[in-house]
Amino acid sequence: MLFFAFLSFEVLWMTRANLLSRLRSAGVRNILVRNLISEFVGTFLLVFIGTCNVAQFHLGREKTTTWIGVNIGWGFAIMFSVMATAKLSGLEEQSIITCSSGGHLNPAVSILFWSFGHLPGLWLVLYSVVQTAGAFLAAMCMYLYYYEAFDQYDSGIRAIAGPTGTAVVFCSYPAPYLGYFTPYLDQIIGTGILAYFLCVVIDEKNKVPKVWHPMIFGFLVMMIGTAFGMNLGYPINPARDLGPRLFSVFTHGSGVFSTPYPSYFLAPIIGPLVGALFGGWLYQVSLGMHIPDDAGTRELEEPIQEQEEKLLEKP
Amino acid sequence: MLFFAFLSFEVLWMTRANLLSRLRSAGVRNILVRNLISEFVGTFLLVFIGTCNVAQFHLGREKTTTWIGVNIGWGFAIMFSVMATAKLSGLEEQSIITCSSGGHLNPAVSILFWSFGHLPGLWLVLYSVVQTAGAFLAAMCMYLYYYEAFDQYDSGIRAIAGPTGTAVVFCSYPAPYLGYFTPYLDQIIGTGILAYFLCVVIDEKNKVPKVWHPMIFGFLVMMIGTAFGMNLGYPINPARDLGPRLFSVFTHGSGVFSTPYPSYFLAPIIGPLVGALFGGWLYQVSLGMHIPDDAGTRELEEPIQEQEEKLLEKP
Amino acid sequence: MLFFAFLSFEVLWMTRANLLSRLRSAGVRNILVRNLISEFVGTFLLVFIGTCNVAQFHLGREKTTTWIGVNIGWGFAIMFSVMATAKLSGLEEQSIITCSSGGHLNPAVSILFWSFGHLPGLWLVLYSVVQTAGAFLAAMCMYLYYYEAFDQYDSGIRAIAGPTGTAVVFCSYPAPYLGYFTPYLDQIIGTGILAYFLCVVIDEKNKVPKVWHPMIFGFLVMMIGTAFGMNLGYPINPARDLGPRLFSVFTHGSGVFSTPYPSYFLAPIIGPLVGALFGGWLYQVSLGMHIPDDAGTRELEEPIQEQEEKLLEKP
Amino acid sequence: MLFFAFLSFEVLWMTRANLLSRLRSAGVRNILVRNLISEFVGTFLLVFIGTCNVAQFHLGREKTTTWIGVNIGWGFAIMFSVMATAKLSGLEEQSIITCSSGGHLNPAVSILFWSFGHLPGLWLVLYSVVQTAGAFLAAMCMYLYYYEAFDQYDSGIRAIAGPTGTAVVFCSYPAPYLGYFTPYLDQIIGTGILAYFLCVVIDEKNKVPKVWHPMIFGFLVMMIGTAFGMNLGYPINPARDLGPRLFSVFTHGSGVFSTPYPSYFLAPIIGPLVGALFGGWLYQVSLGMHIPDDAGTRELEEPIQEQEEKLLEKP
Repeated sequence: MLFFAFLSFEVLWMTRANLLSRLRSAGVRNILVRNLISEFVGTFLLVFIGTCNVAQFHLGREKTTTWIGVNIGWGFAIMFSVMATAKLSGLEEQSIITCSSGGHLNPAVSILFWSFGHLPGLWLVLYSVVQTAGAFLAAMCMYLYYYEAFDQYDSGIRAIAGPTGTAVVFCSYPAPYLGYFTPYLDQIIGTGILAYFLCVVIDEKNKVPKVWHPMIFGFLVMMIGTAFGMNLGYPINPARDLGPRLFSVFTHGSGVFSTPYPSYFLAPIIGPLVGALFGGWLYQVSLGMHIPDDAGTRELEEPIQEQEEKLLEKP
Repeated sequence: MLFFAFLSFEVLWMTRANLLSRLRSAGVRNILVRNLISEFVGTFLLVFIGTCNVAQFHLGREKTTTWIGVNIGWGFAIMFSVMATAKLSGLEEQSIITCSSGGHLNPAVSILFWSFGHLPGLWLVLYSVVQTAGAFLAAMCMYLYYYEAFDQYDSGIRAIAGPTGTAVVFCSYPAPYLGYFTPYLDQIIGTGILAYFLCVVIDEKNKVPKVWHPMIFGFLVMMIGTAFGMNLGYPINPARDLGPRLFSVFTHGSGVFSTPYPSYFLAPIIGPLVGALFGGWLYQVSLGMHIPDDAGTRELEEPIQEQEEKLLEKP
Repeated sequence: MLFFAFLSFEVLWMTRANLLSRLRSAGVRNILVRNLISEFVGTFLLVFIGTCNVAQFHLGREKTTTWIGVNIGWGFAIMFSVMATAKLSGLEEQSIITCSSGGHLNPAVSILFWSFGHLPGLWLVLYSVVQTAGAFLAAMCMYLYYYEAFDQYDSGIRAIAGPTGTAVVFCSYPAPYLGYFTPYLDQIIGTGILAYFLCVVIDEKNKVPKVWHPMIFGFLVMMIGTAFGMNLGYPINPARDLGPRLFSVFTHGSGVFSTPYPSYFLAPIIGPLVGALFGGWLYQVSLGMHIPDDAGTRELEEPIQEQEEKLLEKP
Repeated sequence: MLFFAFLSFEVLWMTRANLLSRLRSAGVRNILVRNLISEFVGTFLLVFIGTCNVAQFHLGREKTTTWIGVNIGWGFAIMFSVMATAKLSGLEEQSIITCSSGGHLNPAVSILFWSFGHLPGLWLVLYSVVQTAGAFLAAMCMYLYYYEAFDQYDSGIRAIAGPTGTAVVFCSYPAPYLGYFTPYLDQIIGTGILAYFLCVVIDEKNKVPKVWHPMIFGFLVMMIGTAFGMNLGYPINPARDLGPRLFSVFTHGSGVFSTPYPSYFLAPIIGPLVGALFGGWLYQVSLGMHIPDDAGTRELEEPIQEQEEKLLEKP
């Protein structure tokens, strides 16, 4: 009797173990599909953890988590999301996309790599769409996770702003003292800093070991939060802002797109895209191009057309 | 005279030095016993440091340590406990358990490795028991260490909740706004995040150096604390919650198992077990299986039966 | 039609990619000019991020960012600025400047390397000038970035001190309890600690891996902020203090050079220069010279004259 | 004229450069003297930075630096002090002291290495004396550095305790709720945790890279501060407590040795010594001796007598 129980248990165990092996050899092999899965999942993780962090900060009336906890939490959210997707979105066998090792998780990062010629235009569009979709789903999960905390904060009546306003948990709203142009400036500078140092880190001439990249990106976002967070709360990522904002239409009504004024929601979309291009190319012009050669640049000087052709054949 | 004093001192010194050498060659060599010692000691260290951290936060009326101090303290408690046991619970000479390098210190982590086929079912049960025992002993030591701080907080009358309530130092209690199902959801999500990124880190395809693992697990728990701590205070570990709760029966009475309602205590036991399975397998399905092969997977594809047989012969 | 659109898009893309390659092979190759660009840009980045951090702390009335956020933010600002310029100001092919790998970004650091014989005197002067210019520009950008936050803080009337005073965002002012000599002492000690541990880190005998240097310098400045920040707010960098002070003449009037008393502004200029020499040589005398040799010192013992001649030929 | 000015400048520069080279080849070569210098300087740095940190916390009325800033600051003070002395106190060419790589900076650490047979008894005594002397000098420098901040806090009348009490800046005093025995228990546990994980880190079987040690010791002290700081403020180092206490006799009177009761000052001396022995050997018994061999233990099993003889010949 006991023997049979043991035997059946062992059979179950072996099956289970084989399941993992079989699973791991059945992964998607189409590069574009694989990368889109990776960008979707990575952005989901980033925005789910990040908005839960903001929810704990805001719904806890800034008594539990304080601002430094928001900075550190978002930083680690970046670190772990990038670590999870680092080996997927960046494809070493396809030299054309080498520089974009690690998940982008941010349309602003994707547009920068597109502008460097490391990402085809179609991919940029698809990346941006799945990133936004991931952020949308993340906002939904965050809402379910903290549903009762929302209720406790506003007694069940969702308000966008005011003393029981909770829309800020989902996406950015400008500080009351800001004018119409400043949100754009804020996002261009904030995302510019992100893109500038992103290029520092991934520039092979700077010899930052690849294994450090996720942690350094986390520290980078911590730094941005301590210095550029007062105006808008550093969204610096169109998907992170638009995805949850779209979801919050279902919870807070369409006013989320017209608060505090109708076109505000465009600033954390357009601003980061412009800022990433600005910051990334500013690095190349101000420092990157002057770093003395000692290998590491060869890859960038390969004839792009050949790479292009290879890429178009594949997916 | 002085010469003899010097001589006897030197003899004592040599003996002492030889003692260390002799000690270090007399360690337990049975793998299961060794791992159980390691899990017991590691969970003891983790929970002792962690509950002392919570005591300092709570008994100091949140004036000394603030929430960010709780997050950082628990994170480092994980880092150092895992570092201390990393070379014991994970046995490199036995390939079947390779993936579980480092101490589990958490039945939820053990059940995940069991589900991957890296830990026999009997071991899972034994691990969980010694982990809970270690956490029980840790709560006792914490209580002795901070006995006078408890007295100063509640004037010697132990209360579970209320203005002088101290039961929360031992184990988790739900925030007042939570319903009956939410604690389960909270633990499934929180432990799911833990298990998801645990699998990211130990997946050899992601090439995270082994020497970094303890520190990264520490950062991971810091992140969880900043984002998923408001509902229950992130126990995410059945042993960490049940062990101290059992001990607090002696100090706070059996009410600790019926506060705020009789079945609550099951949530931080069942939730993490389900959440770890959910998060760990979700990683394999959502990202792990799609990562392109370049070695690192071979080990997982070795015939599990052969490994099984080897394992059953030994202990 | 669509085909042509796609074609023109692809042409644009290729051009863009070639642009990056061409750009990167067109960098400045004169070592002195290159280093001056690097010092200018690096100090700009450091002071821009750092003063934005202080602005968020001060203009947010210390409610958003707290002091620990200032410490962590300035630390990471150092880390990333040094990382960005590490491969430019330090030139490995020119052994005479090997020790000064990484951007100095601080005239006090430059004078220390000059005193070690690793930097010609003319270069020291030029470095200091461009560092101060970079800090001046950084203050201007910070002012534009947080213009509306300034207005919201003081209703548009810039005051140096008092309840709506904002000059402290730009540069250091002494705590009210300080005497005339103490600011010098403060800066000598603070910059001395910086220079002492800077020498620990770059001393090759201590074998701190080069790739760690930026992060360790960041931690170093975090430490200084937690221990030596109460008197003046740890400027410890003449360029970081003088550059923004010069700019604040345009916004706050010339009173910034006579507050709280006329000669104060000299303390955070002279103090750091003296302190860096004091700290750096104290390291060499107290610890550095006693570390047992095992390579790593050879480079320092090369005949300096030969290196000198090589250097004078080049730029 | 200008030519001669330039020439004389260059001569000065070369001399200066040669000065560094000559200095660095003139270091003390006697191992014991060298180590004593290193222990003195290292403990000076540690206690100077650490007590300045406490001064900023206490004299700033806990408004500037908060408790987390104290934890992080002390942690980095450990990290940088150990980094500065890591290559001096630990002598790789003398295998008998290999395990004690890095500065001890703490008589409790020295007694632990003595008990392991890695440090002769006479050295232990000398180390303890110079460590305490370094801490004494550090307290003096801290007092000079923050002299005006002291005056501003207590209007020039130094008090040990009470609303203007400042003795706590120098050394530990027990929380008012503590009994006579608890300070000993507190120090045994706190230093026990320090010694336990110190042994984890330096045990070569655990394969923690040497270059990480200073940073990990820093994290360890951060962790201890978040969990074991409420009772006494974690001195966990007899030199760190006794040295500044001796100095504070000159500033606060001999009452510092009888507050709150005459024998208190012995607790942070005896407690750490006992705690380090307890924690270090507990590690060896509970985990260290069970870690499977794969090299790394050989060194410990070398005949101690031979090493002993070698050592006695040398200094």
